[in-house]
Amino acid sequence: MFTLKGAYTPIATPFENGKIAYDKLEKNLEFWLSSKLEGIVVMGSNGEFVSLLQEEKEELIRFCCEKAVGRKKVIIGTGSNCFEETLKLGELAAENKADAVLVVTPFYYKGAMKDKVLENYFTKLADISPLPVVLYNMPGNTGVNTSSALLSALSRHPNIVGVKDTSGNITQISETIKNCDPSFSVFAGNWSFLMPSLLMGAKGATLALGNVAPNECAELIELIAQNKLEEARQLVFRLMPVNAAITARYGVGGLKFAMDSLGLFGGEPRLPLMSPDKAGREDILQILKTAELLK
Amino acid sequence: MFTLKGAYTPIATPFENGKIAYDKLEKNLEFWLSSKLEGIVVMGSNGEFVSLLQEEKEELIRFCCEKAVGRKKVIIGTGSNCFEETLKLGELAAENKADAVLVVTPFYYKGAMKDKVLENYFTKLADISPLPVVLYNMPGNTGVNTSSALLSALSRHPNIVGVKDTSGNITQISETIKNCDPSFSVFAGNWSFLMPSLLMGAKGATLALGNVAPNECAELIELIAQNKLEEARQLVFRLMPVNAAITARYGVGGLKFAMDSLGLFGGEPRLPLMSPDKAGREDILQILKTAELLK
Amino acid sequence: MFTLKGAYTPIATPFENGKIAYDKLEKNLEFWLSSKLEGIVVMGSNGEFVSLLQEEKEELIRFCCEKAVGRKKVIIGTGSNCFEETLKLGELAAENKADAVLVVTPFYYKGAMKDKVLENYFTKLADISPLPVVLYNMPGNTGVNTSSALLSALSRHPNIVGVKDTSGNITQISETIKNCDPSFSVFAGNWSFLMPSLLMGAKGATLALGNVAPNECAELIELIAQNKLEEARQLVFRLMPVNAAITARYGVGGLKFAMDSLGLFGGEPRLPLMSPDKAGREDILQILKTAELLK
Amino acid sequence: MFTLKGAYTPIATPFENGKIAYDKLEKNLEFWLSSKLEGIVVMGSNGEFVSLLQEEKEELIRFCCEKAVGRKKVIIGTGSNCFEETLKLGELAAENKADAVLVVTPFYYKGAMKDKVLENYFTKLADISPLPVVLYNMPGNTGVNTSSALLSALSRHPNIVGVKDTSGNITQISETIKNCDPSFSVFAGNWSFLMPSLLMGAKGATLALGNVAPNECAELIELIAQNKLEEARQLVFRLMPVNAAITARYGVGGLKFAMDSLGLFGGEPRLPLMSPDKAGREDILQILKTAELLK
Repeated sequence: MFTLKGAYTPIATPFENGKIAYDKLEKNLEFWLSSKLEGIVVMGSNGEFVSLLQEEKEELIRFCCEKAVGRKKVIIGTGSNCFEETLKLGELAAENKADAVLVVTPFYYKGAMKDKVLENYFTKLADISPLPVVLYNMPGNTGVNTSSALLSALSRHPNIVGVKDTSGNITQISETIKNCDPSFSVFAGNWSFLMPSLLMGAKGATLALGNVAPNECAELIELIAQNKLEEARQLVFRLMPVNAAITARYGVGGLKFAMDSLGLFGGEPRLPLMSPDKAGREDILQILKTAELLK
Repeated sequence: MFTLKGAYTPIATPFENGKIAYDKLEKNLEFWLSSKLEGIVVMGSNGEFVSLLQEEKEELIRFCCEKAVGRKKVIIGTGSNCFEETLKLGELAAENKADAVLVVTPFYYKGAMKDKVLENYFTKLADISPLPVVLYNMPGNTGVNTSSALLSALSRHPNIVGVKDTSGNITQISETIKNCDPSFSVFAGNWSFLMPSLLMGAKGATLALGNVAPNECAELIELIAQNKLEEARQLVFRLMPVNAAITARYGVGGLKFAMDSLGLFGGEPRLPLMSPDKAGREDILQILKTAELLK
Repeated sequence: MFTLKGAYTPIATPFENGKIAYDKLEKNLEFWLSSKLEGIVVMGSNGEFVSLLQEEKEELIRFCCEKAVGRKKVIIGTGSNCFEETLKLGELAAENKADAVLVVTPFYYKGAMKDKVLENYFTKLADISPLPVVLYNMPGNTGVNTSSALLSALSRHPNIVGVKDTSGNITQISETIKNCDPSFSVFAGNWSFLMPSLLMGAKGATLALGNVAPNECAELIELIAQNKLEEARQLVFRLMPVNAAITARYGVGGLKFAMDSLGLFGGEPRLPLMSPDKAGREDILQILKTAELLK
Repeated sequence: MFTLKGAYTPIATPFENGKIAYDKLEKNLEFWLSSKLEGIVVMGSNGEFVSLLQEEKEELIRFCCEKAVGRKKVIIGTGSNCFEETLKLGELAAENKADAVLVVTPFYYKGAMKDKVLENYFTKLADISPLPVVLYNMPGNTGVNTSSALLSALSRHPNIVGVKDTSGNITQISETIKNCDPSFSVFAGNWSFLMPSLLMGAKGATLALGNVAPNECAELIELIAQNKLEEARQLVFRLMPVNAAITARYGVGGLKFAMDSLGLFGGEPRLPLMSPDKAGREDILQILKTAELLK
């Protein structure tokens, strides 16, 4: 029985010469798998899942499951606007013994994505998904928000085990925690609101920051479990500029440059994303130094 | 020296026969002034400040200061799109010995309200304001947001003592707390994100909920000061539906109906606002009972 | 019987030493009143109505009506978030023989401004307004939009004669023209979508551009009445950059600088608005030259 | 040399038993190919392109090109968030002798989609695309808008031949027409703003309405070419409610139900989209009758 808790990171997908660079990915994985993280998310937003061909997605699932299953929890991002693809990838994830699937809200026909439509969609999916479903609310990228009323309804489905909420709307996150089934886990989707989410009752998080600072992510969760709030706040504040740089300000290109700077392999993101320019790179280096991630 | 901290409520302005009902207001004030609140805000959003004539605003300032100064802290909402009016009301507030002014971001020319423009505006205002200035960030009503970078710059002004942030954006609130001058207080603008704001370092709040549950508002702040997090969470969750009903769902009309139901005088809001319809009133009564505010 | 048609301009309000500069305004008025405009709007968005004290508004109504009534149609912007103020100013406009009032959608409690609430508001207003009411839909500034369904319902009220729609949403404008009472006039609120609005059936416009190019505004309407579409398009395209500069890009400060450049008195806007900086002023001058408004 | 002009329809993709129903599609195609349309768009928004597996997309391209090339112009929607997929589908479209590709703005990483990033993306794409590229600006679905400044820059690329603009922002459409290279065609993306777009200089349109009323779409363009504006307006107004029903109000599910009602095969959309409920279906039938499309 899978329980969604603790710190995960949505791992970056490294590219070289237009292809997924599996040798580089293997080294990166070794770093994450030997960290204090609870698990990894393959093909999240920071994994550029939307930029992968279907066959690349399948190959990536197989590779990551082979390396990581048994060492850490593995969640596969199978969401897409194509229900058929989501089903196919979910089956493959199950065959490869992943722990759960992360399914982003379908997001192309925004005007039509009413609660009733999303409830129908996720219910049908969860009814047939061989793996437990984690909902993925990412309004910044999708332009669609799953309300706490909808999440509360979906939380009663036995095969829906949690939500990664990246809205940053702490009111909604609190209402969701209050109203959802007790077995349902709320996950924060960003370091910037992880501490308040945990304090309101969230069970963990999926954090871009975990790519470069996995142990600190796990430590924050521990500090809060121990009610060491002042220490926790200091840790949050110290890494807040790093987190802002690799998410809101410079995005995946910034995250990958930070990875390169810290001895991992980041490389360039796929189009349309771009690497930060010279000024951006210098800004990131300075931020990493100030936060003492880079000596 | 005024320090912005603790629980305030933005008091509702009661109307009868098209005029401010001062006799009713006096009774309501007695309730708030004998509560555990730190202070009151006169002419906040829940006070329908935008619906008052200039002469009514002046009269209301005099009346409230006369009743409340010395018993509780008194902050006067003097913000408006008219700088001249804000200055005039600020002088009157000072003459009547109010403690501070609350100044909402000017909001009509939204496209022009860049950080540079707002920094110029608030700096000029604070330079000449006889009372300490509390900034009021209320994007839900104004459509303008004051960024944490702007707030950080303004926090260095000796006559700007804090911000009431009603954005509900806990990332922004956290960044503001981290980056602002230590003497600058961040206030949460709504019960729904008060607890997480306090835990990140906010000093208090201005809460519509304080109109009907002033002691509970003060108690939450005490519980968190004592690190009693589980008790605090239970209190937050118990009153969350009441708070949602009198703010997001039914607005000022809902707040006033709740006041009527609880032995205060609410009455009807001014146009364009309306009282809740029959179904809404029944919903509110049920919510008040479930929360044990109404027996 | 007042009919809303033709080209109006929302006149700028000139300030000097913190007060309305009536001598400068008088000269500006002479320019507009001897143009081909159908009329003027006093205290529109470009007249900075939100930045005027109530007593200034009253004085300005008296002054402009005295100078302009009988020479041009005069519409007074009486809208505000304060219903009582809107009523008072409307009575004063009637006493001073203005032709109509322009009433902006109330805009502070955005979340509450549902169609039902706005229909109640405008109906109550129109029931008692001594002058015909022109609705003012300005979502860019107010954050509230009046739907074509709402406009259609309100168009049946005998004392509501039209709408100035500044949404720029030509679908909505077309639906409004199709669905509203035939006696109801739709006005475009900006040069940038005037031509298409007229071609779909709008009766005229209220145009910031009319402050500096009043005859061209009237001429466009004539060209379209004569079905001279190619000439019309050339005129639209020639002045499009000027219009963008004095509205979307540099706002009221830009409009006032353009007025100064063209021999009118613009001066500085009131806070929070600011004049364009040096680069902006040079940009505007170049644009005025390219459009052959400035030699 | 391909020139983008006239009326196209983005054809619906029919499904039966979870697969593309090619027999039904063939009959539908016969209807469109014998109409006055200039061409068809395969895999536009109304073709549910985001809901198709990669292999289904490839099959659909082959099928439609085989049936339609030579009879009508054929544009293939190859856009997606995956650049690699867009390239692959574009090569296949070229092999199958389609006329052009329609490429929607990449839309997942909204915050990163600045003009510079989009210019880089579309330039790289157009540099290697074997077929002429038509840009697809669809902010309602993507949450990303391509500014007229960006479109103007891209219009200089010899392999970018036009834009389908579904923003409905007539100011932007006018500015784009004014500023783009003369060889570049602007297409309106919806019946609701087609007439004003044509009058400002657009060359044609891609219209969901063309699925059910292809000849009327072509006729409107003819009427405007003949300067028969009153007739054109009557036609626009007659079909406006039908258009609203099958796009904004009931979406693809509504379009497909209307197709079923009119003797074509619509069927059910794929998840997450749903067919209209009973009240919606009755509404659509009534609208079709009022517009005299259904007897």
